[in-house]
Amino acid sequence: MAEQQRAYQIGYQPNQVRHHEWRTAENSAEQLIPVLRERAEKNPKLTLLDVGSGSGTIATSLAKYIPEGTVIATDLSDDIMKRAEELAREAGITNVTFEQADAYHLPFPDEFFDVVHTSQMLIHMDEPQNAIKELVRVAKRGGVVSCREGDLPLMVYWPEIPAQQRFQRLAVTLHDLTAGKSTCGRRLVGLALKAGVKRDQIQASWHTWCYSSPEEREIISATFSDRLKAGSWGKGMLEHGLATEVEIQEMIDAWQEWKESEDANMAVPSCAILIFK
Amino acid sequence: MAEQQRAYQIGYQPNQVRHHEWRTAENSAEQLIPVLRERAEKNPKLTLLDVGSGSGTIATSLAKYIPEGTVIATDLSDDIMKRAEELAREAGITNVTFEQADAYHLPFPDEFFDVVHTSQMLIHMDEPQNAIKELVRVAKRGGVVSCREGDLPLMVYWPEIPAQQRFQRLAVTLHDLTAGKSTCGRRLVGLALKAGVKRDQIQASWHTWCYSSPEEREIISATFSDRLKAGSWGKGMLEHGLATEVEIQEMIDAWQEWKESEDANMAVPSCAILIFK
Repeated sequence: MAEQQRAYQIGYQPNQVRHHEWRTAENSAEQLIPVLRERAEKNPKLTLLDVGSGSGTIATSLAKYIPEGTVIATDLSDDIMKRAEELAREAGITNVTFEQADAYHLPFPDEFFDVVHTSQMLIHMDEPQNAIKELVRVAKRGGVVSCREGDLPLMVYWPEIPAQQRFQRLAVTLHDLTAGKSTCGRRLVGLALKAGVKRDQIQASWHTWCYSSPEEREIISATFSDRLKAGSWGKGMLEHGLATEVEIQEMIDAWQEWKESEDANMAVPSCAILIFK
Repeated sequence: MAEQQRAYQIGYQPNQVRHHEWRTAENSAEQLIPVLRERAEKNPKLTLLDVGSGSGTIATSLAKYIPEGTVIATDLSDDIMKRAEELAREAGITNVTFEQADAYHLPFPDEFFDVVHTSQMLIHMDEPQNAIKELVRVAKRGGVVSCREGDLPLMVYWPEIPAQQRFQRLAVTLHDLTAGKSTCGRRLVGLALKAGVKRDQIQASWHTWCYSSPEEREIISATFSDRLKAGSWGKGMLEHGLATEVEIQEMIDAWQEWKESEDANMAVPSCAILIFK
């Protein structure tokens, strides 16, 4: 398959962006924080590259750990980079800059950054191992590359609401039809090996988002309902003949029912790897 | 069903015990550590109860956070309590005592402990909500109860080795036939509600063990192969007609193949709740 990065399939509807902007270093890059702290102590002027940063909330929260360092955040979408700039300005973060870039062909020389980070990007790519190769290329010798990727079939919902269970199966099917591999998380160590990394350079861990409190239920239900209603999921399911409009409405209703369930719980596991170059 | 605690089905073979003894507060009770630290600062003489503590490595590592406090650890098995005592002595931990007890009928008065903890116990019980009720009963007002439970269908393996995938399905089936509910993790918030806890007293999170490095693969593969070879899983699968001896050997061989796979990864998600009484 041609090595070309496609636009992010999910898109940037308001509730989608809100779901992204909930993400911070603390809830989405825990694997990197101790390493970042330790290295920043030795070298406060660390350089960090965040690839596929979307609205950049992880990049700006990583930037707080290296106030004397420099963060460059990239994304394929120019529009979302503007939003990211605005958010960073609002947050008063001045050591991060944003620029449009293709993750397969990063506009940086070899061995340029102390730390290279990506989160929930490889899962949307056709050739994730080539993107990892590129992340490793721009990391300095002695530097670290941090990747964290979901594994959609592992997402789980309680209570069991039939139309939401159907939604879960279809979301996986649609991802596999239109984006990268839904099982990216479990494959991540293997992908790094394919990118030429040695096993003893890799440290793997798993991290799982939880949606259970009323606030958490509200945020995830709004995001996922919007992806069904106006976003790429609804459209994609119709286009690929996976669901009818009536069935899509049933799934949206199921999300509403789930949101109102006091015993609700949803787990979203991701695998993280640190690559020590 | 009669409210009676049954013996722990998995048993205590050497590699099983080794797998248990790998567990510490840091890898198996992260949800509790910040709360414990904060409360120990205000009251160094905290009392902590660990229920279903097995060989007690989590209890003894929790005890380190409250050196002036007192930890009591209980388990249904008298034998494993002796092993736990020995391990605590070897580790030089003096503020923990072990005693045999039934989790459904704890031999302690109401509102006795500042902190009550359990890990991977409710998943083995017929009436987990009644055990939660009992954990909450012995916690002081203003105290905290911490539970963490697996969710076996969410366990995932890479690469996909057919006999290991079959093993995964059968392990879930066998658990549901002979122990508690394999989906205990996702149900945990609901179980606490059934035990009479209010939703706003509950804080939920998910935590996922990772087995991927050669050392991690060695430890989990030895444990699970032993459960198949000499332990309760092999026996149970035969007794319930789930697998033949030949098929069990194929599963053991699959574990060996997985252990030797450089790209191997296994995720074991658990849900944790903190109940603020």
